[in-house]
Amino acid sequence: MTIDEKFMKKAIHQARRAAALGEIPIGCVIVCDGKVIARGFNQRLHKHSTLAHAELEAIDRASRKLGDWRLEGCTMYVTLEPCQMCSGALVQSRIDRVVIGTMNPKAGCAGSLLNILQMPQFNHQVEITYGVCEKECSAVLTDFFADLRVRVKEEKAARKAAETASLVRMRSEAGTEPPASADPSEKKPQKSEENP
Amino acid sequence: MTIDEKFMKKAIHQARRAAALGEIPIGCVIVCDGKVIARGFNQRLHKHSTLAHAELEAIDRASRKLGDWRLEGCTMYVTLEPCQMCSGALVQSRIDRVVIGTMNPKAGCAGSLLNILQMPQFNHQVEITYGVCEKECSAVLTDFFADLRVRVKEEKAARKAAETASLVRMRSEAGTEPPASADPSEKKPQKSEENP
Repeated sequence: MTIDEKFMKKAIHQARRAAALGEIPIGCVIVCDGKVIARGFNQRLHKHSTLAHAELEAIDRASRKLGDWRLEGCTMYVTLEPCQMCSGALVQSRIDRVVIGTMNPKAGCAGSLLNILQMPQFNHQVEITYGVCEKECSAVLTDFFADLRVRVKEEKAARKAAETASLVRMRSEAGTEPPASADPSEKKPQKSEENP
Repeated sequence: MTIDEKFMKKAIHQARRAAALGEIPIGCVIVCDGKVIARGFNQRLHKHSTLAHAELEAIDRASRKLGDWRLEGCTMYVTLEPCQMCSGALVQSRIDRVVIGTMNPKAGCAGSLLNILQMPQFNHQVEITYGVCEKECSAVLTDFFADLRVRVKEEKAARKAAETASLVRMRSEAGTEPPASADPSEKKPQKSEENP
């Protein structure tokens, strides 16, 4: 196992922590002088915050740990290609290098839609290594979404069964005739019949 | 005074709070339903964090206040054009509109180097209004940097004066002859003279 793979496995562990909370599983670690100095995983739903992406959580912790907003000499290992906000934060942090597990063709900004990390017009460019533990990083996400689809389908089926049971109970309580709201085809009495 | 000018004045007040701490004066407010729901000013040095830009501080507070990572229906008023990180965060937050005081031609990403707020390839685009209270927003920054230059010059002069005073004192303590470190031209005794 290479050094990059060793640290990416730690990022994958962080992604699994997000999945355990029902959050989209993205994780990362920041390494300085061969040691992990900060960890982060996506917690956007639980923290009710736009900023609670894995990368920003880790950048904030690393800055506080080093006592400096600059993360020079550091490397981030992240399971999914960063978005526009996180790529921007990585440039702002002056981090040396970012190692990416799998790409995000629909929203990634480190090579897919844009490459914010390496734009010559900015005052800092970040070295990038792509595809470290790619299959495993990708599987964490596809497994999560497959489970989510099954769960949503099961919840939908359970909701439908509960609605049917409720309708049957209402019809039973009302005798043979279902309530008006349950059967819109029921014929309403005509005004002319009420007031001949 | 227009409504936009009224809220931009509040953002300028935030920028002045940053200046009072010696931070680059950038301030912003987030408005929802005609009320300010969050404020922020640059505190990158004091918080030792890459993320402590005015915009991110305010986005975080607004998300927590609304209990949702989405800032739909909100407008940000910010004194300086946002950087790549803050522009990315604004897109991520799904904010409706951003009102900008003055542009940042060297690093701005809402129209200068890039326009991250309005890229069609992203899943959200932000309405932008430029140049509200532009002169005042610009003056807050130019005044700050002018003061900083004066301060740096004064500190340099004070340091030089202290060094000169120290050198004079050392020479005075050593009689007429200055110490070796202070005058490298001083002639060292020759070995041959010590051990003839």
